[in-house]
Amino acid sequence: MVMRTMELYFSPLACSLATRIALYEAEADATFIGVDAESHTTYDGRDYAQIHGLALVPALRLDDGELLTENAAILQHVAEQFPAARLAPTDARGLTHLRQWLSFISTELHKGVFNPVFDATAPADAKAHALSKAQSRLSWVAARLEGREFLLDRFSVADAYLYTVLNWTFVTPVDLKRWPVLAAYRARLHERPSIARAFAQEQALYAEERARHAKT
Amino acid sequence: MVMRTMELYFSPLACSLATRIALYEAEADATFIGVDAESHTTYDGRDYAQIHGLALVPALRLDDGELLTENAAILQHVAEQFPAARLAPTDARGLTHLRQWLSFISTELHKGVFNPVFDATAPADAKAHALSKAQSRLSWVAARLEGREFLLDRFSVADAYLYTVLNWTFVTPVDLKRWPVLAAYRARLHERPSIARAFAQEQALYAEERARHAKT
Repeated sequence: MVMRTMELYFSPLACSLATRIALYEAEADATFIGVDAESHTTYDGRDYAQIHGLALVPALRLDDGELLTENAAILQHVAEQFPAARLAPTDARGLTHLRQWLSFISTELHKGVFNPVFDATAPADAKAHALSKAQSRLSWVAARLEGREFLLDRFSVADAYLYTVLNWTFVTPVDLKRWPVLAAYRARLHERPSIARAFAQEQALYAEERARHAKT
Repeated sequence: MVMRTMELYFSPLACSLATRIALYEAEADATFIGVDAESHTTYDGRDYAQIHGLALVPALRLDDGELLTENAAILQHVAEQFPAARLAPTDARGLTHLRQWLSFISTELHKGVFNPVFDATAPADAKAHALSKAQSRLSWVAARLEGREFLLDRFSVADAYLYTVLNWTFVTPVDLKRWPVLAAYRARLHERPSIARAFAQEQALYAEERARHAKT
């Protein structure tokens, strides 16, 4: 078996940003392979659907060659592989809470509120219906973060995911300022070194991708 | 601290059926509290939104009083609490695979394909758009189950969840017969004693709930 560096397949500012943040937190040795979100072509010219049949990001090629999919599973895997980074609780109940938030963010926020908004094939009614869930779902998270710095007792991969999702409010009709606790949480995390670096890199790649598509 | 029996809040044939199946597999001592899916009133007359702010099922009241939410987290918690039932792998990679499937089922199948169909507030376009994802997502699971008895090496909580979601095809325009491997998998699981018992009980409760609403 040839061991190699992990490879993260990502699209700029998509939910794969959370995995990049986790890898930076862990100071993990990894290669980042961009995937054009519209054409599903990797930046090095491959058809991403030949790599991941559903062409979803993130996907993490492990050092033994396996391709791991699903953000919630990938984030927990990174946390487990790099325990020194303390990206997940170590007690059973703490891990249950981590999974609770990863599940909430991925189902209620990511898929429930934001996914149809970014889906070019979604009709206007589907986008509007998804956005109608924003009030209750974001208020639920805001209530959790009232008086807290992080979702759990310290920074975890759930914060990396929630930060990533909250950023999407800037390109959707959801006005994050309606939840001051969430706006403050996002702004705090935005200053965290791993996140500032990851965001700046992906923001630049996002702008390049927009410019490419504007030309074609 | 008064220790008490776990309580599962469920709605008949909703995704909470997966937790009931897991509890039966574990022969866990638990109380089952029905929640009317339309009125959000518990069968014993309480406003469920006062128990779970978003009124989502399942929610599991633990024996120390904490209310655990989010199906993926609850299912893993039950598997951990009852290791003798072997409802989850015990090795790290196996657990990663379990989380991968729990995440796929909850995001791509449950929220992505079926949730809008059951949401009385969802416009027709939102339902149709969600259903348009069925072909690719169910084919993805079918490819995994080709030649396999279960999603992982043996029965796990991921199978309890997938069985529950596949049952929804019978009350939606998704025709499970288009994926013979999925139809056969669902039929096999349907014969499993824990599942046969759980389904029969919830099917009866579902019929009672329909009859109540037909009268009003």
